[in-house]
Amino acid sequence: MGVTEFVEWVGVDWGTSNLRAWGLAPDGAVVLSRSSDQGMGKLTRDEYPGVLQALLRGLGSNRGGSLDVLVCGMAGARQGWCEAPYLEAPTDLRGLIDGAVRPPLPDGHLTAAILPGVCQKSGGDNVMRGEETQLLGLAALRPGFAGVVCMPGTHSKWADMNGTRIEHFSTAMTGELFELLRTQSVLRHSLVGATGGAGRDEGFAAGAQIGLDRPEQLTSELFAVRASSLLSGREPDWCEGYLSGLLIGTEIGSRRARIGNQTVPLIGSPALCALYAQVLGMIGAQGEPVDGTEVVLAGLKAARNFIA
Amino acid sequence: MGVTEFVEWVGVDWGTSNLRAWGLAPDGAVVLSRSSDQGMGKLTRDEYPGVLQALLRGLGSNRGGSLDVLVCGMAGARQGWCEAPYLEAPTDLRGLIDGAVRPPLPDGHLTAAILPGVCQKSGGDNVMRGEETQLLGLAALRPGFAGVVCMPGTHSKWADMNGTRIEHFSTAMTGELFELLRTQSVLRHSLVGATGGAGRDEGFAAGAQIGLDRPEQLTSELFAVRASSLLSGREPDWCEGYLSGLLIGTEIGSRRARIGNQTVPLIGSPALCALYAQVLGMIGAQGEPVDGTEVVLAGLKAARNFIA
Repeated sequence: MGVTEFVEWVGVDWGTSNLRAWGLAPDGAVVLSRSSDQGMGKLTRDEYPGVLQALLRGLGSNRGGSLDVLVCGMAGARQGWCEAPYLEAPTDLRGLIDGAVRPPLPDGHLTAAILPGVCQKSGGDNVMRGEETQLLGLAALRPGFAGVVCMPGTHSKWADMNGTRIEHFSTAMTGELFELLRTQSVLRHSLVGATGGAGRDEGFAAGAQIGLDRPEQLTSELFAVRASSLLSGREPDWCEGYLSGLLIGTEIGSRRARIGNQTVPLIGSPALCALYAQVLGMIGAQGEPVDGTEVVLAGLKAARNFIA
Repeated sequence: MGVTEFVEWVGVDWGTSNLRAWGLAPDGAVVLSRSSDQGMGKLTRDEYPGVLQALLRGLGSNRGGSLDVLVCGMAGARQGWCEAPYLEAPTDLRGLIDGAVRPPLPDGHLTAAILPGVCQKSGGDNVMRGEETQLLGLAALRPGFAGVVCMPGTHSKWADMNGTRIEHFSTAMTGELFELLRTQSVLRHSLVGATGGAGRDEGFAAGAQIGLDRPEQLTSELFAVRASSLLSGREPDWCEGYLSGLLIGTEIGSRRARIGNQTVPLIGSPALCALYAQVLGMIGAQGEPVDGTEVVLAGLKAARNFIA
């Protein structure tokens, strides 16, 4: 109350459903972290400055003057705070900072820059916002890494990286399809009462194998959830595991040629990354979970260091 | 009003959302048809007799005694009127009548028999109820037909027929996925305001080609709906057409080896059958729309004629 903490700068990951902020020391150490549920999905354009100021109350710049805030994620979307036009892949992510936009803030205490997302127009229309910063962070933490990176989630991203360059990426709607099918489709009748019990693992493995073997049959194999519960008395846990395995298996199966036997960094929730690692193991590849907070922080730091 | 119409028997197609009844003359001519919105989805087990009696009020048997009613569809499901256990494919659909169940009716005016559905346990768990009667009808109308039959809809059925035998079948959740994605997913933002305008056809053709070429990429190509509207300013009509084309293209593309260059009978709504015929044409096959009412009636008649 009235005490000011001084930091070198602040990094912010402003997503659709929440935001996280880290206060950083000159050596890059995190000296404080704060978060809020005021994600892009809940805000009008005018509300962003107030949310940021409230979240960073009591923070000051240890260099005097205004405090620099570097933001990545959905705050830069057209429907966000201030649109940061996409960089177009293939591109070197060290260029992110050059595409940053600087929204006006009503008082002079904070200075904000919002990093752009990345789009792709040849090789399949696609967009990302936020993941590009994690990818830059991964490249910074692992100099010289080249290969496929997977970011499992509502809309899973797969990126072909070569150092700090993103060569190509794709998006699978796996997480969103799982939720829609689990809660809204005819399959929900077969999942009612699932408790995450033992049958789930067995169903997951069975579904994953089918997805890997026949990714082109997804819309048909989905109906097997319903038929199996009617015909074979499959329990809700088994059915929910099968649905999850089938969707993840399809996602990975359709990328088999690209994945080969690589060790694929997995950036996402630990529970989800463990499922992806299991399925990658089924095709002779490996999944290696990477801490998402660590890479987004490394990405914000790397982007800031490329300021000319 | 006290006047009784006399028929030889009554055929009923009792589906999830409605039911249709036809009164038939001894020569098989339809002398009256009635329908109701009291489908299985709205009824408890005890309500079926009353709904049927109300629908058939004023009808009598021209042979005296009780009036025979032959029912196909979801009334025979476990959650319907009276469960008619599945026949298991591969099987000869002339055996449907042997699997019929006869639910009790409170007065002696009507006598009902409900035809079974068909299940499949080897070659992929699957179930159908109602479609088997249409398939028997198609076989009756086209003696000697052998090949693939498609029944587009919420859950599209594909059956390999050989005369009256059903050798194998599969179910694609195409219609249900289209509705879920159109109304509930992130893609809905790109479809708001679609009016079925000119761009729809162009989007449909583009989506269908991608689905045919890369059916294993469905969960990734779906996201292109969103990305295309953000990046290329694709209009809602184009996006809705693309989504529809991608799903139907994927369904047909994943069955390409089975379809070959056949002429595929299409049983379903005329508008939907026209879309399937268009996509079948893109792979050098043909689609031939068949009237759904005609085949269900032919199927009920054929089933009745096999009564020993």
